[in-house]
Amino acid sequence: MKRVLSGMRPTGKLHIGHYFGALKNWVKLQDEHECFYFVADWHALTTNYENPENIIEMRRELVLDWLASGIDPEKATMFVQSKNLYHAELFLLLSMITPVSWLERCPTYKEIKQEITDKDLSNLGFLGYPVLMSSDIIIYGANYVPVGFDQLPHLEIAREIVRRFQFLYNADVFVEPEGLLTEVPKLPGLDGRKMSKSYGNAIMLSEDLDEVEQKLKRMKTDTRRQRRTDPGDPEVCPVFDYHKVFSTEEEKAYIMTECRRAGIGCMDCKMILIKHIRAFLEPIQERRRKFDAEIKDMDEFLSGSQKKANEEAGKLMERVREAIKI
Amino acid sequence: MKRVLSGMRPTGKLHIGHYFGALKNWVKLQDEHECFYFVADWHALTTNYENPENIIEMRRELVLDWLASGIDPEKATMFVQSKNLYHAELFLLLSMITPVSWLERCPTYKEIKQEITDKDLSNLGFLGYPVLMSSDIIIYGANYVPVGFDQLPHLEIAREIVRRFQFLYNADVFVEPEGLLTEVPKLPGLDGRKMSKSYGNAIMLSEDLDEVEQKLKRMKTDTRRQRRTDPGDPEVCPVFDYHKVFSTEEEKAYIMTECRRAGIGCMDCKMILIKHIRAFLEPIQERRRKFDAEIKDMDEFLSGSQKKANEEAGKLMERVREAIKI
Ligand code: SF4
Ligand code: SF4
Repeated sequence: MKRVLSGMRPTGKLHIGHYFGALKNWVKLQDEHECFYFVADWHALTTNYENPENIIEMRRELVLDWLASGIDPEKATMFVQSKNLYHAELFLLLSMITPVSWLERCPTYKEIKQEITDKDLSNLGFLGYPVLMSSDIIIYGANYVPVGFDQLPHLEIAREIVRRFQFLYNADVFVEPEGLLTEVPKLPGLDGRKMSKSYGNAIMLSEDLDEVEQKLKRMKTDTRRQRRTDPGDPEVCPVFDYHKVFSTEEEKAYIMTECRRAGIGCMDCKMILIKHIRAFLEPIQERRRKFDAEIKDMDEFLSGSQKKANEEAGKLMERVREAIKI
Repeated sequence: MKRVLSGMRPTGKLHIGHYFGALKNWVKLQDEHECFYFVADWHALTTNYENPENIIEMRRELVLDWLASGIDPEKATMFVQSKNLYHAELFLLLSMITPVSWLERCPTYKEIKQEITDKDLSNLGFLGYPVLMSSDIIIYGANYVPVGFDQLPHLEIAREIVRRFQFLYNADVFVEPEGLLTEVPKLPGLDGRKMSKSYGNAIMLSEDLDEVEQKLKRMKTDTRRQRRTDPGDPEVCPVFDYHKVFSTEEEKAYIMTECRRAGIGCMDCKMILIKHIRAFLEPIQERRRKFDAEIKDMDEFLSGSQKKANEEAGKLMERVREAIKI
């Protein structure tokens, strides 16, 4: 059985973009492989070190969203990164053999530095986060890591670090992880931009359904449909991106035709979507409420799988120390 | 009672320069303060990552040299850095708030990079080692750190990191460590250069006494004394540097006079020194043999104080996590 590893930063409640971009795939993978899903709370500090949020609470919200989305604690091993100190040990050991130049040339390093201009990201932890990410992956001997295209360079660093370690110490302790390229449907924010909680344009998985309906009703459409009688083009309408994800083939064909000849209004079109999104969110929110009520102490709830993860990592670290002779 | 922290890298047996530069002071400090002395084996990887030596064996040799020199396990807490994962956790957390620029401008960073040209030191671990060193110190709330002048910049980074952490997280968990400037006598190598095992010009604490005698007999003196009848100048003679450390006031005065008027030969002068160095090394080597025979498993021997160190660090890390809310 192959191992899969993936993680998310606990930066707040998840939105439907997270679901279709990652969680839906996680749910599928848990039936096919041995999956390790972790709360990347140390990673949250690489860009959020000034700590605007309470990470302890964010961890709980994140895991609740996972459970709500169908991650099954009986199938997948869910755990918290910061509760497994072996990740920090391996990060430290790998940092000894990782050239700074590999990290500086990492495209996401440059990008994020350009993107996030409101805080100083010139810290050692931010520079080193691909090394921490590599540790997270290889400490479980993960064969596969679900990735989007933009994360491939990180995975390449992990693979290079594995090769360098095994060469320097003439050891065979790590697995070179491979990327599982995930097809991610386009799901823009309500204003047509990238969906992001910080833009205020996201639909959260745990958001009140009536509010979701109101938001969808106000959602941006093809700007050329100023009046009910103006024809539109679903291909350039963000609402139609949602239909591609949620609606049936018949509905999509119907909208495609009727929008273009102004046969339906945008509100008619959106009501079809609202019906689907309600049906999609209802069971998720039902599960979330159930787990939220059941789980008093999240650490305790995760303790069994946390223990399993820590033991797995501990076994590998013994072999790592043996290879280094430390 | 104030706390003192100091460490040494396990890179091989120690020489008399280490004794007079550090250990003699450690022995004194253990009676005055609560001392934590640690084997900095992770640090050994920052410059020695290619692992020419077996660090496990080097750890044993190092602790034997400590015990031989008079470090008392009943007084000082001796432990191994790599067996306390909290150091790695704190290193990781502090790396999140430490600007790379602080590390790049550290004078020893530039120096060592210039000095060690036979291997590539452009690794993340080498860049980050002042952060690891800071973690080592502040994780025990150490008040004092014995330092030479050249290490003051490192201590300054530790103090800056403490201030930045406490400011960012509005916390009061760390002690700002202060340097205990140690007066270190000049003790050059047998060839007059800096004493260093790699130059082959050192007298090891555990070296066979007859070999030590032979080496001292061949030791470089004032080059102007080509013949027995040539007068010399103790002020420029490395042998006299040793006399300053080992010989009595009377002997020094006697040599000062007689060397300058060729009243004694260099061999006469050296025999005085040899007598003292034998008397100095004998009890050290006696203790070393005793501990070497007694201690089968060094990890086991250290387990009590290792446990104490880990518990102390663990207590502090709880407060650190609380401050970050992670
Ligand atoms: S009818 Fe639907 S697809 Fe067409 S512009 Fe309006 S919201 Fe968009
Ligand atoms: S007599 Fe002693 S101090 Fe003078 S040159 Fe010889 S070794 Fe040096």
